[in-house]
Amino acid sequence: MDDRAFDALVADLRGAQAPRVWSLLVTIFGDLAQDGSMIGAAVLGRIAAAIGIRPEAMRVALHRLRKDGWIESKRIGRSSVYGLSRKGRAESVAASPRIYDTHPPCGAVWLILRDPAGPPDQSECAGVRITPHMLLSARPADDPDVFATRIEADRALPVWISDKVCDPETCDLSMNLAARLDRLCHALAPEVRLDPLQETVLRVLIVHEWRRIVLKVPRLPDHVFPEGWRGPDCRSRVEVLLARLPRRRPDDVDCGGSA
Amino acid sequence: MDDRAFDALVADLRGAQAPRVWSLLVTIFGDLAQDGSMIGAAVLGRIAAAIGIRPEAMRVALHRLRKDGWIESKRIGRSSVYGLSRKGRAESVAASPRIYDTHPPCGAVWLILRDPAGPPDQSECAGVRITPHMLLSARPADDPDVFATRIEADRALPVWISDKVCDPETCDLSMNLAARLDRLCHALAPEVRLDPLQETVLRVLIVHEWRRIVLKVPRLPDHVFPEGWRGPDCRSRVEVLLARLPRRRPDDVDCGGSA
Repeated sequence: MDDRAFDALVADLRGAQAPRVWSLLVTIFGDLAQDGSMIGAAVLGRIAAAIGIRPEAMRVALHRLRKDGWIESKRIGRSSVYGLSRKGRAESVAASPRIYDTHPPCGAVWLILRDPAGPPDQSECAGVRITPHMLLSARPADDPDVFATRIEADRALPVWISDKVCDPETCDLSMNLAARLDRLCHALAPEVRLDPLQETVLRVLIVHEWRRIVLKVPRLPDHVFPEGWRGPDCRSRVEVLLARLPRRRPDDVDCGGSA
Repeated sequence: MDDRAFDALVADLRGAQAPRVWSLLVTIFGDLAQDGSMIGAAVLGRIAAAIGIRPEAMRVALHRLRKDGWIESKRIGRSSVYGLSRKGRAESVAASPRIYDTHPPCGAVWLILRDPAGPPDQSECAGVRITPHMLLSARPADDPDVFATRIEADRALPVWISDKVCDPETCDLSMNLAARLDRLCHALAPEVRLDPLQETVLRVLIVHEWRRIVLKVPRLPDHVFPEGWRGPDCRSRVEVLLARLPRRRPDDVDCGGSA
């Protein structure tokens, strides 16, 4: 695909504002380097440039991520390579099922009520807190002091509950992303040919945009989300697009250019 | 049954304190005069005396009930007869199913949650309010703004819910009454013979003691009540005892004595 057409695709997928660079880097390393691969500075620079990120912003973000212990770097000759630290890798591995899962979180949800006259719930919550004494949880409660009732897939929740599962702003983000992914699906007709860098740039942007939404919402089945939630659409389009845009080894991304 | 043995039965059934007279009269009229019968002053006096109520307290209570529009009186010769007013009869009729029902209220209960950020529930509540935004109701909710879940008979509710259905004090009353009714059942062996006044006094006391408990608790099935609730025991003993102690026409109660 020529640069002009490709830039238009990127601009549409990226949206009006460039992503925060350190956050985009977390996506890039999580997607390309979770297996322990190192990514050369040149490859990172090319991916970032294609997304509209200035080299200086990139350097600052790399420095910050290294300082935070998320990535590590090595010098090889005159240039540097970067990879996930032990911590960065562990967190990437932990987040991956949610980002890459092609199925929604599985079906069971419980509404759990605690005594409103008692202390608010402080437990580790596998779900979402509706009020200090009311949870939606992916786990049943094993406590005689709580009332728990399973929420079946066929029941509509009132808005004051489902809005706590996913606020209207995040629903809007999901709707917006679903539309962008839809346009990208149509643009990437089978006959469209992309080079490895182009594939990687699109792939990384897709993962990044979806990650920002899916990690923000609780890991609960779609049926407890509000009507405006387009997570299922996003999820299925992410699946189709990532299959079309396979993950490359970092060294294979840098097709011919030099940093 | 001789007077001494009978007085002992009454004393046990009545408990340590004589009932409030106007409340006992409500029971007497509700039980004996709901069909429009009039009760002579002499019969009322004999029932009251057997329960340990002074004639003066009786006169005051009759006066009060007449003033409240619950009963009406007629003079016949030198004495008076009393009957339920239209209002007193309507309220007695309304309460009767709960008092005399030999079955517990039927099985369906819903826990209903309203938006805690919204106004508290003001609706006519066929059940019990657990918090301003949480009801246990005998009716399902037909409102998309509420969350309602049916409480099946096999589930134990946490204490902070069941205690709102019936407080520990009322549970204790039910336990105490169940024990007294149990003793009465044993005392009234088939060979024990009672005259109509004795039957009526026991009958009225049984109805009175049960009425004070059953009308205090919400009309919900027993399975949402706390463990200490002995309503089912009371209900079944009331059924057995009232069958043993048939309702007499007021004129038939006054067996030979004169006021």
